[in-house]
Amino acid sequence: MTLTQKLINDGNDTVDEMLAGVMAAHPDHLWRPDHAPRAVIARHGPREGKVALVIGGGSGHEPTFLGFVGKGLADAAAIGNVFASPPPQPVMDAAMAAHGGAGVLFMYGNYAGDVMNFDMAAEMLEMEGIETRTVLTTDDIASAPREARDKRRGVAGNVFIFKAAGAAADLGLPLDEVERIARHANARTYTMGVALSACSLPQTRRPNFDLPAGEMEIGMGIHGEPGIRREALRPADAVTDEIMDAILSEMAAAPGDRVAVLVNSLGSTPLMELYILHARVNARLKAAELEVHRTLVGPYCTSMEMAGASITIMHLDDELQRMIDHPCDCAMFRQG
Amino acid sequence: MTLTQKLINDGNDTVDEMLAGVMAAHPDHLWRPDHAPRAVIARHGPREGKVALVIGGGSGHEPTFLGFVGKGLADAAAIGNVFASPPPQPVMDAAMAAHGGAGVLFMYGNYAGDVMNFDMAAEMLEMEGIETRTVLTTDDIASAPREARDKRRGVAGNVFIFKAAGAAADLGLPLDEVERIARHANARTYTMGVALSACSLPQTRRPNFDLPAGEMEIGMGIHGEPGIRREALRPADAVTDEIMDAILSEMAAAPGDRVAVLVNSLGSTPLMELYILHARVNARLKAAELEVHRTLVGPYCTSMEMAGASITIMHLDDELQRMIDHPCDCAMFRQG
Repeated sequence: MTLTQKLINDGNDTVDEMLAGVMAAHPDHLWRPDHAPRAVIARHGPREGKVALVIGGGSGHEPTFLGFVGKGLADAAAIGNVFASPPPQPVMDAAMAAHGGAGVLFMYGNYAGDVMNFDMAAEMLEMEGIETRTVLTTDDIASAPREARDKRRGVAGNVFIFKAAGAAADLGLPLDEVERIARHANARTYTMGVALSACSLPQTRRPNFDLPAGEMEIGMGIHGEPGIRREALRPADAVTDEIMDAILSEMAAAPGDRVAVLVNSLGSTPLMELYILHARVNARLKAAELEVHRTLVGPYCTSMEMAGASITIMHLDDELQRMIDHPCDCAMFRQG
Repeated sequence: MTLTQKLINDGNDTVDEMLAGVMAAHPDHLWRPDHAPRAVIARHGPREGKVALVIGGGSGHEPTFLGFVGKGLADAAAIGNVFASPPPQPVMDAAMAAHGGAGVLFMYGNYAGDVMNFDMAAEMLEMEGIETRTVLTTDDIASAPREARDKRRGVAGNVFIFKAAGAAADLGLPLDEVERIARHANARTYTMGVALSACSLPQTRRPNFDLPAGEMEIGMGIHGEPGIRREALRPADAVTDEIMDAILSEMAAAPGDRVAVLVNSLGSTPLMELYILHARVNARLKAAELEVHRTLVGPYCTSMEMAGASITIMHLDDELQRMIDHPCDCAMFRQG
């Protein structure tokens, strides 16, 4: 089998070398404690009396997670190996560096490894007298039935969900309120994706799952978790319609309701294709008489070089709209 | 041969459908004249008495070109088919919609088809009494020897070169000055790339050139133009060193000089790899005692899903630094 072509050095060093490159590129936005190389902290986010938003998870999804650390969004991120949860220590390091005496909110995608490690860190923090709450993101509607929302995985909708919570924290709201808004944002965010190829781990440079040439998998997760169905690749409009049917059905919005939209690349799918998808997403939202308040198109939550895309719709209300409109200034995501 | 997996509808409609998606996503930034669907105009760029900066070229390089249309950068872009120059009419349409009575500056990469079509549009504009100048970008140092700079192609360095000219125009400088600064920016910008795979045209979904598995091509152009050498893929640091050796040698900067850096994905190469490259770029610049004033890392000038990357260094002086620091607000590129 052909090895995937990657511009790397030793496959075991990719995360540390990436972090070195990130810190060198964005010294005005990010710093790391000397003793905690896997904890990335916002230069201008944390402050006294502010709830600290700490996110994190496995690497390979850039700009998720570290790209969303910055003023108005997350205060810190704990960085795991490729597709692997960070252990408790960097989570703890990130929280200790970011907290300002008003408590810590952990937010991350709902994956067993992350839950275990962040929960251990939360226990350690409680022993230090730092109040910690956790909101898991569960926006991937293909990953479990509607009745089992808490079994669903967190994917690209993270961008909107983290952003809402980060805005609430930046506005100086107390921990109870930031947590409430984070849960509210998660409950109103719906994502579904389609994969057109696997990606490869840097250590092996071999596909992390098998997807036959010419096929796509609807609903596949960002680590290659099984989706809903595998079939021959269909035209962009048909794929978009299937995803939008599922999202619109579950979202049950009324005409005139407002939404935020994210058309996300899983990695190698270029902007040209994302905008082709977006043309159809927009037509479907118009047909449903929904008002599009904000649109993001690009690589926001990736699986390295996986081909494919996901569509996220956040069902706004006045509160979420205010949070989504709040400015943020991160190394990889800026909003004025 | 396996067809490349793409999320498209009819391969002949990709550019028009992409543009529909772009306009739907960014109505606050961009508009198109009713009669000119391939001319994309900045909502807040053009104004009376301001030089109009008009860029353009083939599609497939997004966010180049249309993503750089906006206040503080380009006033309009003419959009060609995939990897094909726009004909004179959309170039003319873009210029007519953007000009504010102070002349028009055309800027685009040095490719024969673009030169022919933009020159024809310039003649048509002169007949309308609109003064037009042209500055070709020629930043790809692998595409011709140093002595034949005017034979070189324009690639990712466009981002910095367009930005410098766009800032000059936004500052209200006259056409002579905007043109001078554009030439100055181009003369001090150096790019070299490496390709790890081909990309495929939407119509055929077949690779546009043949690059054997496990090989890379140093210096390859963004349409697959031949590079300097083809060989087995080497580690990221070795590839970066070869590129930086070439750039630093030609740039001939003195210790203490300032630079702007762009590490660019050609398409499917993810942020993880770009930041690994950037770690080495930064180390090399430090070793040369150069001061990094600004850094961009991401997909800025792509070839659809081509794997690979390019490195651009702009050798700043006080004037170029001011231009590079000038704010811009484009649909796909914002700087505060």
